[in-house]
Amino acid sequence: MRAEIVSVGTEILLGQIVDTNAAELGQLFASLGIDHVHRQTVGDNLPRLTEALRLALSRADIVVTIGGLGPTEDDMTRDGVAAALESPLVVDEAVEVHLKDLFTRRGFAWTTSQLRQAQRPACAVPIDNPNGTAPGLLATSKGKTVVCLPGPRNEFVPMVYGPVSEALSNLSGGGSIVSRVLRIVGIGEAALEDRIRDLLTLEDVTVAPYAKVGEVHLRLTTRVAPGADPGAKIGPVADEIRARLGEAVYGEGETSLEARVLELLRGRGLKLATAESLTGGLVGGALTSVDGSSDVYLGGVVAYASSQKEALLGVPSSVLLAPEHGPVSEAVAAAMAEGARARLGADVAVSTTGVAGSSPVRENGVEKASGLVFVGVAGLGETVATRFQLGGNRETIRIRSVQFALASLYRRLMATG
Amino acid sequence: MRAEIVSVGTEILLGQIVDTNAAELGQLFASLGIDHVHRQTVGDNLPRLTEALRLALSRADIVVTIGGLGPTEDDMTRDGVAAALESPLVVDEAVEVHLKDLFTRRGFAWTTSQLRQAQRPACAVPIDNPNGTAPGLLATSKGKTVVCLPGPRNEFVPMVYGPVSEALSNLSGGGSIVSRVLRIVGIGEAALEDRIRDLLTLEDVTVAPYAKVGEVHLRLTTRVAPGADPGAKIGPVADEIRARLGEAVYGEGETSLEARVLELLRGRGLKLATAESLTGGLVGGALTSVDGSSDVYLGGVVAYASSQKEALLGVPSSVLLAPEHGPVSEAVAAAMAEGARARLGADVAVSTTGVAGSSPVRENGVEKASGLVFVGVAGLGETVATRFQLGGNRETIRIRSVQFALASLYRRLMATG
Repeated sequence: MRAEIVSVGTEILLGQIVDTNAAELGQLFASLGIDHVHRQTVGDNLPRLTEALRLALSRADIVVTIGGLGPTEDDMTRDGVAAALESPLVVDEAVEVHLKDLFTRRGFAWTTSQLRQAQRPACAVPIDNPNGTAPGLLATSKGKTVVCLPGPRNEFVPMVYGPVSEALSNLSGGGSIVSRVLRIVGIGEAALEDRIRDLLTLEDVTVAPYAKVGEVHLRLTTRVAPGADPGAKIGPVADEIRARLGEAVYGEGETSLEARVLELLRGRGLKLATAESLTGGLVGGALTSVDGSSDVYLGGVVAYASSQKEALLGVPSSVLLAPEHGPVSEAVAAAMAEGARARLGADVAVSTTGVAGSSPVRENGVEKASGLVFVGVAGLGETVATRFQLGGNRETIRIRSVQFALASLYRRLMATG
Repeated sequence: MRAEIVSVGTEILLGQIVDTNAAELGQLFASLGIDHVHRQTVGDNLPRLTEALRLALSRADIVVTIGGLGPTEDDMTRDGVAAALESPLVVDEAVEVHLKDLFTRRGFAWTTSQLRQAQRPACAVPIDNPNGTAPGLLATSKGKTVVCLPGPRNEFVPMVYGPVSEALSNLSGGGSIVSRVLRIVGIGEAALEDRIRDLLTLEDVTVAPYAKVGEVHLRLTTRVAPGADPGAKIGPVADEIRARLGEAVYGEGETSLEARVLELLRGRGLKLATAESLTGGLVGGALTSVDGSSDVYLGGVVAYASSQKEALLGVPSSVLLAPEHGPVSEAVAAAMAEGARARLGADVAVSTTGVAGSSPVRENGVEKASGLVFVGVAGLGETVATRFQLGGNRETIRIRSVQFALASLYRRLMATG
């Protein structure tokens, strides 16, 4: 069973609105096991809309249109569907009565243009729209199904998760799609593929990598017949990937790296502090994005100016001024983490220092390259500082530094757990 | 001149990501006067991608692909474009040397799959990608132009507003598009529209509002004939808007509110510190996103746990424990800002405290609602704390809190300047 979306609206093509409706429908198709391999977007133009619908009908079993159901002359989805299905437009009398009644009750004048909303191809039935005037349409013709939905979010969403998902589920004949996402840190996308290449071409389970900042997600997807064990096909593949990658698989589903780190600390009864320089507070920001972080994360220090590394964290000025160290150094990252751990009375502390600017900086007569970053982790037995050389602009370097700080902490926790 | 977008990626069809890149390109086409009447979205499948490109080339002068340029086997845009243009794939030696050098400098192993990123159709030239490994492509063949762009936002955006908009502007011939963005804080979108409604329907200059978190941007756009004064049409409209809105227009173009605040502080020789609770470091993170922030921003304290508000910032425990105050209160916001100002030796400090969780919290026997946020500003004569009641989920409340902290600081600076 294959579906295709045709999004209708010049405002989408002009970039005035982002097509979140289509993304939401895509998720619904996936969860119902309906293949979705094409999507088209066309403006408010009848010949082009009709042509797009014909193309969609030539290659999909189900075509879903979004938008173009309103009362104005710009709204021509009904006309396009009628033309593409070669089914004449008729006025649905029940809808006409309903709309006239609605307008009377709301005290609005009934205009003839409103009557357009009561039209439907003869082969279609209306779909109730509780939040708007234009009903949706469900047309069946020559073995194909066309579903027409309104564009406004508050009308679209309840119709999709109500009558439309029910109709699509019936059409796709039972069964469902099951998917699991494995979240991986510390291995690049290409290196990861090299290690699981044989699993990328399995017949029954799709394994798809998605590169994120500093991590890779692997989505495992399979189709499950009605009554079958949903984990039977996907479980062994996930186990095999976990066996090959070990602790690089830090979590599953919606579990972020910061949530996983907090969970590990919580499990061991440890309190965390941060000491940040180039990330300016973003590590604390990431940790506190997790609901419930306050029982593990105490807080931290943003020591952006070098003088504050000494004043707020007790980093010795001799280290800050030494040509072999300087503010961007392994020694300062270590001292910052130790300082935060001591000053906040935490068990564990993580620190960042580095060069985020687009050009190198000179410290104590020594040049430090853009993207040179040190992460320190204090506590957990010994203090460990790690050097990274990151690429990209200021924003990219900082975002990746946050991720590498969390990854360093994660690895220390796994190594000592 | 007609353009068509082909967005490539199974993750788009599955609804895992929303195609904001395509919307942004649509805006660029509109501003350049390039017609845009079709958009296609296809998955990571070579025959379907090639077919989609052939269809696009049959009806558009310019085809822009988004996504599918990475190093993995899923990334097949290069192959699809080569097939559709009937131009053989070759390895671009300069790109190969650049990539190998990049990998060596970053200490990553060079794998053969990375070499895919150096491939291009023979008729194409690479487009520099400063934030990623895969370059873009600009192919010209049989009177058609194909532009290939990477999908990740941080790679896509600078390429679009750099070399790609320049190439498209040249292609669309004659004159150029001039636009200015006024950035407005402290007025909602609807109220703003009420105050400039007559300017939204001008013939020569398009004035379009875009609502952002805590601020509104007004984009003024006009087409300028070759040789004409680029500011002649747009300047008077911008002046009129500034006259009506006063200091609510805090900046223009890429000037963020944090950059503007730092500029105002720098102009007055003032040093800034932060004291954050519910924002967890995100205010410091925003300030340090600005290149050159280190000459104004000293650093700050993330006092997430209540005990740290006393330990790190000297907030009196009597205030933290008082039923009429508590950690989420005007008094604590004020004391946090004063504490940060004193401890870091800053001239000015800004603080945040509030309830970011989705449910209310009880403090000292008093219920504090979700979204209740206090911002303190110390220095500039007197300490001022402001109460906000924000809506939304945890993430929204925190992001808006950052914005309102910066806006409060901006208003204090304007009031005392």
